[in-house]
Amino acid sequence: MDFSLRPIGLVQSELTKREHAPCQGDEGAPDAWIELEPSAAPALEGLAVGDEILVLTWFHHAKRDVLKTHPRNDVRVPLTGIFATRSPDRPNPIGLHPVTIRALEPGRLRVGPIEAIDGTPVIDLKPVL
Amino acid sequence: MDFSLRPIGLVQSELTKREHAPCQGDEGAPDAWIELEPSAAPALEGLAVGDEILVLTWFHHAKRDVLKTHPRNDVRVPLTGIFATRSPDRPNPIGLHPVTIRALEPGRLRVGPIEAIDGTPVIDLKPVL
Repeated sequence: MDFSLRPIGLVQSELTKREHAPCQGDEGAPDAWIELEPSAAPALEGLAVGDEILVLTWFHHAKRDVLKTHPRNDVRVPLTGIFATRSPDRPNPIGLHPVTIRALEPGRLRVGPIEAIDGTPVIDLKPVL
Repeated sequence: MDFSLRPIGLVQSELTKREHAPCQGDEGAPDAWIELEPSAAPALEGLAVGDEILVLTWFHHAKRDVLKTHPRNDVRVPLTGIFATRSPDRPNPIGLHPVTIRALEPGRLRVGPIEAIDGTPVIDLKPVL
């Protein structure tokens, strides 16, 4: 039984290639805009500049049939099960990005730092508890 | 453009009804087993008892057309955008559960505390960074 994910927005970033993206946001990633689907925009109400949130993305370039990998692409590290790593290549390639809200405009928000590349679908936003 | 999520396992819990589940794991939720799909089991390698991980679930009973809600089902709290809450009712009803691994057996792991109810599909496991 599969489930259907519907993007609620898209990342607009100066990062355009996966090989240029750092492994994690706090490793030098830029800020980026998230352009929301118009139908999802009302769900932003209650968020404010300065809030820490989790952005969930769909790594649309990921390989979904990978079960083990060398963490951080370092071949000196033994092959490790994907669930023990944050590799984007995984059965359900969901990215989890802790970010700060830098700006809020109607239908879009600026967040960062975030290592997701330009055009990455956004599937959810959650407050940090 | 939609994306297809494939469950990698299922929650086996004594919690069988959504109305009995606490809002968050640390509010009295029990431990539970996650029974993995056989194809996904090799991806567990590298995880150990005592590790803190994030379990991502799919709230299969959620309403996906809700954009605002009263946080924690408290009608005294003003209606708030779904992305500013952890409500399971949201466009993509992904649950995010920080848990500790209590036991590891071939093809399954015991984690907790976790408020997901019995039968909830599991879509990803990630290490806490």
